[in-house]
Amino acid sequence: MITQASTSVARDRIAAAYSPDLIGRLAHQLADQLKSHFQMVMRSNGNVLNWNVPAVNLACAHQHLEQEQIEADPTHPDFAEQVGQRFASLVQTILDRSHNLHDPRYIGHQVPASSPLAALFDAVGSATNQVMAIYEMGPWASAVERSVVEAVGEQIGLTRGEFAGLITHGGSLANLTGLLTARNVRLAQSWESGVARPGRPPVLVVHADAHYGITRSAGILGIGTQQVIRAPLDERRRMEPRQLDQLLTDLRNASTPVVAVAACACATPIGAFDPLPDIVEVCRKHDVWLHVDAAHGGAAAFSDRYRHLVAGLADADSFICDAHKMMFVPALCAFVFYRNPSHRFEAFRQDAPYLFDPTTPGDTADFDSGLTTIECTKRAAAYGLWGLWSLFGRQLFADLVDTTFDLGRRFAEILHEAHDFECLYEPQCNIVVFRYIPDELRNSPPQQVGEFNRRIRRRLIESGEFYIVQTNINGIGALRITIINPLTTEDHLRGLLDAIRQTARDISSSRPPLAD
Amino acid sequence: MITQASTSVARDRIAAAYSPDLIGRLAHQLADQLKSHFQMVMRSNGNVLNWNVPAVNLACAHQHLEQEQIEADPTHPDFAEQVGQRFASLVQTILDRSHNLHDPRYIGHQVPASSPLAALFDAVGSATNQVMAIYEMGPWASAVERSVVEAVGEQIGLTRGEFAGLITHGGSLANLTGLLTARNVRLAQSWESGVARPGRPPVLVVHADAHYGITRSAGILGIGTQQVIRAPLDERRRMEPRQLDQLLTDLRNASTPVVAVAACACATPIGAFDPLPDIVEVCRKHDVWLHVDAAHGGAAAFSDRYRHLVAGLADADSFICDAHKMMFVPALCAFVFYRNPSHRFEAFRQDAPYLFDPTTPGDTADFDSGLTTIECTKRAAAYGLWGLWSLFGRQLFADLVDTTFDLGRRFAEILHEAHDFECLYEPQCNIVVFRYIPDELRNSPPQQVGEFNRRIRRRLIESGEFYIVQTNINGIGALRITIINPLTTEDHLRGLLDAIRQTARDISSSRPPLAD
Repeated sequence: MITQASTSVARDRIAAAYSPDLIGRLAHQLADQLKSHFQMVMRSNGNVLNWNVPAVNLACAHQHLEQEQIEADPTHPDFAEQVGQRFASLVQTILDRSHNLHDPRYIGHQVPASSPLAALFDAVGSATNQVMAIYEMGPWASAVERSVVEAVGEQIGLTRGEFAGLITHGGSLANLTGLLTARNVRLAQSWESGVARPGRPPVLVVHADAHYGITRSAGILGIGTQQVIRAPLDERRRMEPRQLDQLLTDLRNASTPVVAVAACACATPIGAFDPLPDIVEVCRKHDVWLHVDAAHGGAAAFSDRYRHLVAGLADADSFICDAHKMMFVPALCAFVFYRNPSHRFEAFRQDAPYLFDPTTPGDTADFDSGLTTIECTKRAAAYGLWGLWSLFGRQLFADLVDTTFDLGRRFAEILHEAHDFECLYEPQCNIVVFRYIPDELRNSPPQQVGEFNRRIRRRLIESGEFYIVQTNINGIGALRITIINPLTTEDHLRGLLDAIRQTARDISSSRPPLAD
Repeated sequence: MITQASTSVARDRIAAAYSPDLIGRLAHQLADQLKSHFQMVMRSNGNVLNWNVPAVNLACAHQHLEQEQIEADPTHPDFAEQVGQRFASLVQTILDRSHNLHDPRYIGHQVPASSPLAALFDAVGSATNQVMAIYEMGPWASAVERSVVEAVGEQIGLTRGEFAGLITHGGSLANLTGLLTARNVRLAQSWESGVARPGRPPVLVVHADAHYGITRSAGILGIGTQQVIRAPLDERRRMEPRQLDQLLTDLRNASTPVVAVAACACATPIGAFDPLPDIVEVCRKHDVWLHVDAAHGGAAAFSDRYRHLVAGLADADSFICDAHKMMFVPALCAFVFYRNPSHRFEAFRQDAPYLFDPTTPGDTADFDSGLTTIECTKRAAAYGLWGLWSLFGRQLFADLVDTTFDLGRRFAEILHEAHDFECLYEPQCNIVVFRYIPDELRNSPPQQVGEFNRRIRRRLIESGEFYIVQTNINGIGALRITIINPLTTEDHLRGLLDAIRQTARDISSSRPPLAD
């Protein structure tokens, strides 16, 4: 059959996909489905993680793509009914197979149980497809982004009008953008001529526990991952300023160019916050660009109790903060900040006459996001944050930080009280790393304890009872939680310890751990 | 006042931000607001672009952030009512200040009037904050992404099981990912050791009209923007295979390493589709990596009538396709495809023990998106596409391509019939470039005609009557439209010509154009 857009069937199908009545009908259905879903999930009436192996989920996803077209003619009244039924079924499939971050037993990665209300604002942007690149394409989206950049930057200690910032799609891109800026500023002409140059190859100095997004930036930017130097840490896994000072002295003596020092607030493995005021001082002494990955911890600036953790952050040359972490909005909404506002134009330079119009009035070009972000077409990623903030005020973000950071400390106390658990580090925020060490493993090699903990976690998360993660500390496996659902309570954490003990018993009874 | 998370006020505020009842209530409100909005916009009852200068929009955005907290106690029944009122007002503010892409008089950038139904699926992902990085974090999101990667790849001519693909946040990132892969494969050790190497510096050969995202990839990846060579075009602005052959011969004779050839399907300025089968042959002859930016045109593969435009695309080493362009889903959802599936692991390499768990069963690691995409935490960007496809079937995408591409050709005929307009190139798709040349400017210098067209456009878009864009063709300003709203008809396009004429008269009567 030859398809013709001019056929009435094609026109009718398009009309259905753009029908305001159908949009309204399905959106009301969705409202009810979401309400029921959150009622169930927030009460833990189901699994946290709905685990299926990839092949099973993939087959299901394909099956829906390949199902028969709806029988009724798009102009027939039955059509809306049939679309409504299929929509409900598709939404239910998504919900039934999802990872339920809003279950208080979700205590996993640094991805929050976001406020679902924030998602409703995102939905407005998505339904109307508001985007940026140039101001005239998304004037309101551009203004909303600028307003939260200014508000968050000020909260962190910058002065409005004297700094610049932007939003991009995730912490990895945010770190890449900051480090690209550092490279372009510190290795003159590297944007135009490439990073190859006479003399010693340039290096990137990073927190030894820096996120892989930081270290692989060196690979992307043409510096080379082997040119990454890991700065030594103290006993709480924080960058050690005196050793950094020595390292930078050695590099200078060797005439090795330093693209940047990348510090953390906090580093992912155990949530360690670097002593930023001291790091700032060392970097200034050596005239080295300081970039700080505050993806997780930047929001501590909202809390009177925890603001001290990010003292000095505003003195970095560049830093990032993910609103889709500790500001509890849906992914992705990551900030990059520059202390010197002119640096925002150093990351990228391009000529696109069909985009950037010389007749643009006044200061409009200053709002053209395409000049400062890696994205050309960029979605209105700030709507969720702007909406949540406008609904509840900034105090909500302080409450969320306080609640989850407080509970991290409480969990450490609970671990200390338990004779069969080991808390590896005093938590500095809502990330806690620990191991279960039952009596029979007390004298076992550490590697074996680590492996046993990994097996417990695998079994536990696939059961759907709790979702926690794992890491390596000095090469040995450990359990790790991030309290990033504000509905999680001390009772849930006590329940986690019991579930770990029970899972360990189940494993041991089916197969002795020592034989592994 | 010292804030304490343990205060009941803080607990109640958090409970409100996570209340299923409030989610349901606000989502129902939103359903009604969206329905009314689309009814108005799709009937053109308002402005296309709601133009305000940045300062005005920014002040409004800040005003909402800074408003007083809601008076009622979160536990009081009045609270939900007050939140509902504020929510309605915030949503209305967004809608009133938006760019109305769903008005059929929006004929602007390569950003579609997306199907609002797709946004409802995105909203499910956003409300429940489904993300990826590792499979276990978002099993269903990972499976949905894989299913549409396979389905779209097959539609373009690849064979399931014999290729790889991924989704990332936008065409610029997709191109960067493909070109990073090319760099890592073709410049051995550039990931680990950096791009500096003995001998002639490497170059990137691009379509002379390539998008700035392609050329600036050379800046980001450490190759250098000066190392970009623009391949000559034919009279329809398509890459010319014989001249490409000569260029690659010259480069080989000069021992200059070539990172990749970047062709277009189509290039942005006038929508030119490169002759891919010939380009593929030339690149294979020279053993050069071929990357194709098919961000806009890749979806032509869904149409029986226009599939020929992307013949040969599946033979490229890497190529991209934006579902948020001609598949009419909301931003951002961009595909990268690799003909050789093992190439997907060449772009990035990282070690993140807290993420990638060695006890992961079976083929699960193959679904860990963090290994192949620039994002670590990645939102479930494929939900909208998967949902729309599952609702209406793949025929919808064919209909959308046919409708808009057909109308592009029809617009060229209308321009040819009008004595006072010039169609600069026969359109190859839904992008058309033209100029208004009234009798009094027939003998004026081209630069003056170009400037007058720019002034017309600026005035026209700020009036809210139509939204079109502008470009430079050989240095001279021109008008440019993309028919990327399927509700746009021939009547709207005739109305555009009248509006341009009227705007020109308004300009001329207020200030003679020749005096500019």
